[in-house]
Amino acid sequence: MSRFAPLPAPPYYAVIFTAQRSDGDHGYDAMSAQMVEMAEQQPGYIGAESTRDSAGLGITVSYWKDEASLVAWKDVAQHLLAQKLGKTRWYEHYTLRVAKVERAYDGPEGR
Amino acid sequence: MSRFAPLPAPPYYAVIFTAQRSDGDHGYDAMSAQMVEMAEQQPGYIGAESTRDSAGLGITVSYWKDEASLVAWKDVAQHLLAQKLGKTRWYEHYTLRVAKVERAYDGPEGR
Repeated sequence: MSRFAPLPAPPYYAVIFTAQRSDGDHGYDAMSAQMVEMAEQQPGYIGAESTRDSAGLGITVSYWKDEASLVAWKDVAQHLLAQKLGKTRWYEHYTLRVAKVERAYDGPEGR
Repeated sequence: MSRFAPLPAPPYYAVIFTAQRSDGDHGYDAMSAQMVEMAEQQPGYIGAESTRDSAGLGITVSYWKDEASLVAWKDVAQHLLAQKLGKTRWYEHYTLRVAKVERAYDGPEGR
């Protein structure tokens, strides 16, 4: 399965989540898998790209059809996180940015 | 040094670069270091976040003050890449998305 998200014609939305994991799992892997499964069932979900290095710094970018679909996802995600009470244990620090994709392409050319 | 970029008040721009590295270095690490150094000297550069896992999937998000600064950076970056002739050797595949950041926050709360 490709680890790249689809490239629909812009505009659409990106949620850029950068996070430094804390040490230890504390249920993180199970939550993370559940989160992906739930996102895939949400209306307006386009796809996501995610990676994390050995020092625990991860970036996940999820893509959404429009503002309404990402706001709906935010409610679902926050509800799940609140249930798990894990946010402060899983992450030393994170930033979340919502951005409107204006243009996009892929490469390398001539592939 | 923090691996998180600053969080200025939106709007500003994000360049989301997701790439699957090819095997072998082929001058990649040297180019990558030079690229970061050059970006930091560009007008309008806010910061960047970057990570890559052991399977070679990397995500780098750079942040720019406005459209003009990221377009200027694109010219510089493409010139460097063209000089190095490495793009097709370094990456099996990549996607690049330009997005306007509308809102942003960090956490966890109560930190």
